[in-house]
Amino acid sequence: MRQNYTVNIPELAQFTQIIMDLSDDLITVIDQQGMIVAMNTAASRLLGVRPAQMIGRSLVQAVYGGKKFDYQGNYLSPLVETLETGREFKNIETKIKSPLLKSDFVCRTTTGLLRDAQGYAAAAYAYDKNLTEARYLERTNENLKEVLHTQQLQTVLAFTEAIGTRDNYTRGHSERVAEYAQMIATAMGLPDISQLVYIAALVHDVGKIGIPEHILNKPGRLTEAEYQVIKQHSVLGANILKKVDSFSDLVAIVRAHHERYDGNGYPDGLRGEEIPLISRIISVADAFEAMTSDRSYRRRFSIEQALAELRRCAGSQFDPVIVDNFIKLVIGTGWGKSLG
Amino acid sequence: MRQNYTVNIPELAQFTQIIMDLSDDLITVIDQQGMIVAMNTAASRLLGVRPAQMIGRSLVQAVYGGKKFDYQGNYLSPLVETLETGREFKNIETKIKSPLLKSDFVCRTTTGLLRDAQGYAAAAYAYDKNLTEARYLERTNENLKEVLHTQQLQTVLAFTEAIGTRDNYTRGHSERVAEYAQMIATAMGLPDISQLVYIAALVHDVGKIGIPEHILNKPGRLTEAEYQVIKQHSVLGANILKKVDSFSDLVAIVRAHHERYDGNGYPDGLRGEEIPLISRIISVADAFEAMTSDRSYRRRFSIEQALAELRRCAGSQFDPVIVDNFIKLVIGTGWGKSLG
Repeated sequence: MRQNYTVNIPELAQFTQIIMDLSDDLITVIDQQGMIVAMNTAASRLLGVRPAQMIGRSLVQAVYGGKKFDYQGNYLSPLVETLETGREFKNIETKIKSPLLKSDFVCRTTTGLLRDAQGYAAAAYAYDKNLTEARYLERTNENLKEVLHTQQLQTVLAFTEAIGTRDNYTRGHSERVAEYAQMIATAMGLPDISQLVYIAALVHDVGKIGIPEHILNKPGRLTEAEYQVIKQHSVLGANILKKVDSFSDLVAIVRAHHERYDGNGYPDGLRGEEIPLISRIISVADAFEAMTSDRSYRRRFSIEQALAELRRCAGSQFDPVIVDNFIKLVIGTGWGKSLG
Repeated sequence: MRQNYTVNIPELAQFTQIIMDLSDDLITVIDQQGMIVAMNTAASRLLGVRPAQMIGRSLVQAVYGGKKFDYQGNYLSPLVETLETGREFKNIETKIKSPLLKSDFVCRTTTGLLRDAQGYAAAAYAYDKNLTEARYLERTNENLKEVLHTQQLQTVLAFTEAIGTRDNYTRGHSERVAEYAQMIATAMGLPDISQLVYIAALVHDVGKIGIPEHILNKPGRLTEAEYQVIKQHSVLGANILKKVDSFSDLVAIVRAHHERYDGNGYPDGLRGEEIPLISRIISVADAFEAMTSDRSYRRRFSIEQALAELRRCAGSQFDPVIVDNFIKLVIGTGWGKSLG
């Protein structure tokens, strides 16, 4: 039992009243009959009354409209429960309905009995730690994080809009690749990264902004020199995204989306697991989308042809596990039908 | 004087100790001799001691190392000042140095005297509202706002990078226009918008991403049809930026940067004050930058020629007040010399 130092405080009643009224926490004391013997300013302010108006009234009458239990038979007031059952609460979260505030008031509540020298309950107190301000700040915090996240997503959409202003094909292509890539991630049991996969796929070709359109949209085969220019787009894209700290995850993914599983891709010749997983997923989705849509220089493949091509290149161009998953996904869902 | 309801609380000393120790606020009481008669858990925890260890010790000795005043002769402890001078404090901000925490502990402090029935000071109390958690959340909020702001700036830089990947001239042009525009805003006594001016000017030509480079970089005069295509860039730019909510300020500015003061500009034919102020500022900076740099189809103007041209078009193409300010700026600072 801790030492009771309060016995040394002169003018204790005066002091207790002062500290109760300086507190932002809600403090209420009821006697053996459930009558309010003390209520501090913070508590009464919430109820829209002066403390003096509450003294001597029944807590159940004054605050709970005469109701002691809810329809399930639970005490509405932890303080009344403590008085009547002796059950004390320590730091439980409670909501107090304030007639003055529109929303509930959230508190961390502790209750207990005051015992006389014989150990009998002389009164019960409730100490409700007022969490409102802290909760408000926490909520603001959450909102800001949300805004930050939204801003990231919107920035990605602004980039796809920027791609679209000069190259509508790439915009549509990116949107379909994003859909396919996200479906692969989900099918592979990777829901945690599925949003990142979607976003990364949306901007994987952002570097094409930097490729002259006479090369980008050239009908027919590219010369070797033109192909070298096109190949810059993954690095250009990574360089654009690198400017935004919160896009750091995207930079490596976009840079590596033309790497090959066998190490013969570009720009860095990464191989196998060295290539970010999301880049490997995008690579499969990208190839499938490209094969199954018309290009200026050829007609599109059928779904079957495209899947056969993916299978043929599994282990060389593509991660074989991802190809397997993708083929199962297309066949299993009959999803190819709607495309083909 | 408020009604003293605490007289009705049974077992007052027990109750007072309980609520003191439930409080996160720091509560200290000293007697007439400055000896600590009560200190709650929140206060003693900060000092790294148990409350019982502090009781009966001199506050000046136990907490302030025996020093009562700072080198300017001010009381180190508001509580001691209250006891000795009778001066009471209400909600003053204080910093408490805790040996346990690296940073200062910020409190909102109230002090006062406890008076006996004859009105003599029997003791003094300090009630320090603990602002640490709230301040921590506030700081986190500030940091998040900072990150949000940084992300916006970085996104703008990513767009200038995107412009730069295909059109290095526009990037350099935009950077110089941003500088000039910001100088105009500052010279006009508009420091509040100077950063927005800078950012808006950096991205004012972002829509050029959507203009085919054979038109954008055409040496020689544009045909009417080509000019119509070029003119789309302000709307394309606004459409890109529109995707990001936090860029809403930029959208109208970028859209209107080719409006003319006389209403003969594009895309909306706005006139005078209908044109956003920042667009009018960018318009002057833009024209000046364009005139004073070499283009594929002409050599650059001298500073004097460019200023004369701005003056000639003040009131028709440009806001005359902004032109005046700009000319004063260039002449007054001798800044033209370094450019010319």
